[in-house]
Amino acid sequence: MSEDQNVVYIGRKPVMSYVLAVITYMNTPDAKEVVLKARGRAITTAVDVAEITRRRFMQKLQIDKIDVGTEELTEQDGRKRAVSTIEISLKV
Amino acid sequence: MSEDQNVVYIGRKPVMSYVLAVITYMNTPDAKEVVLKARGRAITTAVDVAEITRRRFMQKLQIDKIDVGTEELTEQDGRKRAVSTIEISLKV
Repeated sequence: MSEDQNVVYIGRKPVMSYVLAVITYMNTPDAKEVVLKARGRAITTAVDVAEITRRRFMQKLQIDKIDVGTEELTEQDGRKRAVSTIEISLKV
Repeated sequence: MSEDQNVVYIGRKPVMSYVLAVITYMNTPDAKEVVLKARGRAITTAVDVAEITRRRFMQKLQIDKIDVGTEELTEQDGRKRAVSTIEISLKV
């Protein structure tokens, strides 16, 4: 399995679709960890996904690590904009 | 100094007003740590405050710990709603 296969990128879909992605992945054989990655407004959604998955569906799931950072995006007009990022590592 | 004085509650004000609050607090004598607390949509703002303060203004500031959680709010109509929370501890 490649290194990045256990990453769930959080965007603008409903929270529950990401919760389902995490549960589905964690129920595959040998899955022990999943990383939620989000930036900007989706950061709140990433925290929601972690919390809802842990509390409602997979009580064994723990938050292993949370990292925040900054990414520089280039807009269509060429201007640069800094955007905050988060990575939440969940493991059983 | 009481235990809670070094908490900055992140809400709907512009990001820079919280960045300024952190910088001001960290420049008082003996200040070594500040905790950013936010919930719901303000979680993204809390991450922005941590990142902007560290990168643009106080390079010595480090993220000591990040905790996420869930709080139960009661709406005016009596219904309960779960909301995600974040606490970001910053220290020099």
